[in-house]
Formats: sequence, structure tokens, C-alpha cells
Amino acid sequence: MKKKNSLHIVFIGAGNVATQLALALKKSNHTIVQVYSRQLQNAQRLAQRLKCTAISDLHSIVKSADLYIISVKDDAIVEVATRLKLKSKLVVHTSGSVDMKVLQPVSKNYGVFYPLQTFSKTSRVRFKTIPVCVEANSASSLNTLILLGHSISDNVQKIDSEQRRTIHLAAVIACNFTNHMYAIAEQILNKNKMSLDILKPLIQETTNKIKTHSPAEMQTGPAIRDDKKTMEKQLQLLTGNVDYQKMYTLISKSILTFSKNKSAKLE
Amino acid sequence: MKKKNSLHIVFIGAGNVATQLALALKKSNHTIVQVYSRQLQNAQRLAQRLKCTAISDLHSIVKSADLYIISVKDDAIVEVATRLKLKSKLVVHTSGSVDMKVLQPVSKNYGVFYPLQTFSKTSRVRFKTIPVCVEANSASSLNTLILLGHSISDNVQKIDSEQRRTIHLAAVIACNFTNHMYAIAEQILNKNKMSLDILKPLIQETTNKIKTHSPAEMQTGPAIRDDKKTMEKQLQLLTGNVDYQKMYTLISKSILTFSKNKSAKLE
Repeated sequence: MKKKNSLHIVFIGAGNVATQLALALKKSNHTIVQVYSRQLQNAQRLAQRLKCTAISDLHSIVKSADLYIISVKDDAIVEVATRLKLKSKLVVHTSGSVDMKVLQPVSKNYGVFYPLQTFSKTSRVRFKTIPVCVEANSASSLNTLILLGHSISDNVQKIDSEQRRTIHLAAVIACNFTNHMYAIAEQILNKNKMSLDILKPLIQETTNKIKTHSPAEMQTGPAIRDDKKTMEKQLQLLTGNVDYQKMYTLISKSILTFSKNKSAKLE
Repeated sequence: MKKKNSLHIVFIGAGNVATQLALALKKSNHTIVQVYSRQLQNAQRLAQRLKCTAISDLHSIVKSADLYIISVKDDAIVEVATRLKLKSKLVVHTSGSVDMKVLQPVSKNYGVFYPLQTFSKTSRVRFKTIPVCVEANSASSLNTLILLGHSISDNVQKIDSEQRRTIHLAAVIACNFTNHMYAIAEQILNKNKMSLDILKPLIQETTNKIKTHSPAEMQTGPAIRDDKKTMEKQLQLLTGNVDYQKMYTLISKSILTFSKNKSAKLE
């Protein structure tokens, strides 16, 4: 017998997000009934961990589940959506940047269930503090997604497609781009026979500060001081990598512009 | 009577680094005897917290201290160095990017004491885990600085001027530039009536991951997937700020190049 609010769920996709989300949902007493992946092997790998059925043919998907979670690459969502017919069963995708409406052809009831975190297949994610952004085309579907969200996270937010696009852009800038800065810093240090370890306390403190302060107020370094001499010397150290030099100049300029005009317009 | 390894120290400068460093050294049983600042008021503010003398004339500096710490803006170090004459008293600066040799005119014994952290005047810093980079022109001065470093931190490293320049460049990229990314993300979210709070768990996880993994291995997002459709949509969201668009394009391109060629040359 099904427990209260416990759903039977089909996963379409077996990548990083699908893996972590399915494991978390199973742990919260939902039942994953099937995992689909174009590559049967990938579906099997995840299905094994969930103790459910693996399929690689969309026609084999059961029609009796409560919820269908499409968790594939952004480009593949539309493709899946055109081939999947679920009448009025609730279907969602998990993407930050794809409009909810692409699921219109699939079912009368559709929505988005977007956990705002960076996932890898291996390291287990603690969902409790992860913001889950939900959106649906009807109040009852939204309620289902809100309860589903709260079964794994304390932080569930109603976010429409336009807001979600903004959040996703901000996430790319604040996380993907910063991670690339760490990668460049490590490359520069390694090249000079040092390790990124020496910077880790400073990196940690930089993110600690924004827990309680606006990052704009916490900016330090040669760019915001307009310390041209230091910037010139640092550009020289980057000789040999024109892209890094361009990035250095552009970001430094942006830091100064930002600080001079905190109300800088973003039309 | 002076305790073993306890030094009498004069601070030249009363800014963020001087403030935090002086407070930490005092707490570790060193004696701060004077604080100099061009603006007497600034010197007084810090001297009051240290219970020592404030001065605004370099000629008033006592000659009997064990150590003179120049902690002023990079550009001002040379200027101070030309006006200060200390014979053979140990003098250091605290800068990441200035060569040790600029202190040659000041004394026969000179060096660098560079705490690798971002400081503000108000929020107290825990020095214990902060890397302190030391360099000196003689073995005995180096030993003094190593012991001084270990009196406030568990992480003291011998770093020469060339290495220190590299570390400082890497720090600017990994900390100042990432902080600017946070500032831009906040600006974009605020403009759309949302708060940076929604991104904070993701930002935290991004830095957590690099504790145990190389950032290059952890890169995610549209750029590394070469997901042109998403990148195109995000660029459109940035319409109205040409600098942000340029930055977005340049960093995205660099992420892809980096991942395709992890041995990318940095000549």
C-alpha cells in the first residue's frame, strides 16, 4: 500500500541530476518504478541502485505512475517531449533554462522541478538545504510538486519560467565562471610548481563573507583600487595566453565600473 | 621583561591588513610600540585598540624596536622606503606583489611578511589557518619571520618574490574576480526582484568541491557542454550591458578551450 504523499515515479534520464534526485526521492519513501535512458547500460546502472526496471525504449514506459521526471540534457528535452504521450499524467523537467511550455505536447498537466545545485554522479548530495524551484500549469499540480519538494528539501520556492531563466544565468556566472577562475588559478600555480592549496583559505573566506555581506561591498584587490601598476605587472605575467590577458583586462575594468556606479543599469 | 620570542614592533600603516595583523600579534604576546599613519586620526584609531602610541611623522619612529612592519598601499611602500632609515633593524612589508628588494635602502636586514587573506577593518580574522608567506635577505632574519609567523598561524611558508607574484596573481583571479562574479549575479537577481540567497547553497557547494577535487574536473554548465542554444539565450538576457556580454562570451570560450586542452600552454 502506498504511504501518504508517496508517489510512483518514472525517471526519463540517468545522468547526474537524475541519479542524485532519484536516490534522494527513494530515500524519502517515494517509489521509482522505471528508469529510461537511450543507452540501456546507463539506465541499468541507475536502476540497480534504485532496485527498479531499466528501459531504453520510450514505448515501454508504464502509464500508471503518478509522476514522470524528464531529466535529460536541455537540448534533448524537446525531443523527448515530442515522442512521449501521457494524456493527463503529471510530467516535469528539471532544467534551469528550458521553458515549462515545451512539455505542453506531452500531457495536460506539466511543470518544472528544478533543484538548484551542481551534481556529479558519484558524490552524494544533501538535498535538505538545496533550493528546489517548482512551477506548474495548474494549482493542483503545483501543490503536488511543492509537497514532493518538501519531502527532500527545506527550501522549496515557486519560481516561474522567466525567473528561472534569470536564476540559471546568475548560477552560471556565480558558479561555473568562478569555478573556471579556480581552474585558471590552479593552472598558474602548478606551472610555477605550487599548489592551489595555498589559496584555499582565501577562497573559503571570500565565500564566507558573502553569507553576511553583499559581495559588492566586499570587493578588494588591485582593480577596485585602480592600482594600474600592479595590474600592468600581472598582465605581463599572463604573457603567452592572450585569452587570459583579455579576461584579466575585461573583468578588472568591470570591477572598477561596478564600484564607481553601483546603480549601473542592466537594461 | 620581554618574553622569549616576543618582539617589540612598530607598524607603519593603519589600514585593513595593519589593523588585523597588529591585533593578532598583540594577542600572541608581541608588543606593538607605535603605529604610524600619514593621517594621525587613523593611527590613533588603531593605537587605541593596541594601547600604544600613534604618530604621523616618520621621524618620530623609535629606533629601538625589533621589527618594523610596513603595511601601506603597494604604491606607497617605495615612498615610505625612501624616507625611512633603520640601519640594521629588521624591516618587512606585507604586500603580495611588491619585490622584497624595494626595502634595500631602509636597512641591512629586510624581508616580506605576507598573510594570504582578504582583510577588512571590522570583521576579526582567525589567523590560525591563514598561510603566511615569508622571505628575507638573510637566514637569521628569515628565522625571526618564521617564528613570528608561527606565533599567529599554523601555516608559514618560505616563498620568494617571484613565487609571491604568482600567488598574488592567482589570488586576484580566484578571489577578487570570483567575488565580482557574485556581485554581478546579485545585481541580475535583484533587478528581477530576487535575492542572492537562492544561489548561496550552490556557491558554497562549488567551493566545497575544490577542497577534494581539482576545479578543472568539476566544471559544469552550458559552456563545457558547448550548449550553444543555452549560451545564446543567456547572452540575450544580458542585452543592455555590452561588458557583461563580452565577459560571458570570453569566459565561456575559455572554459571550453581549457576542457579540450587541459595542457593548454601558459608560456
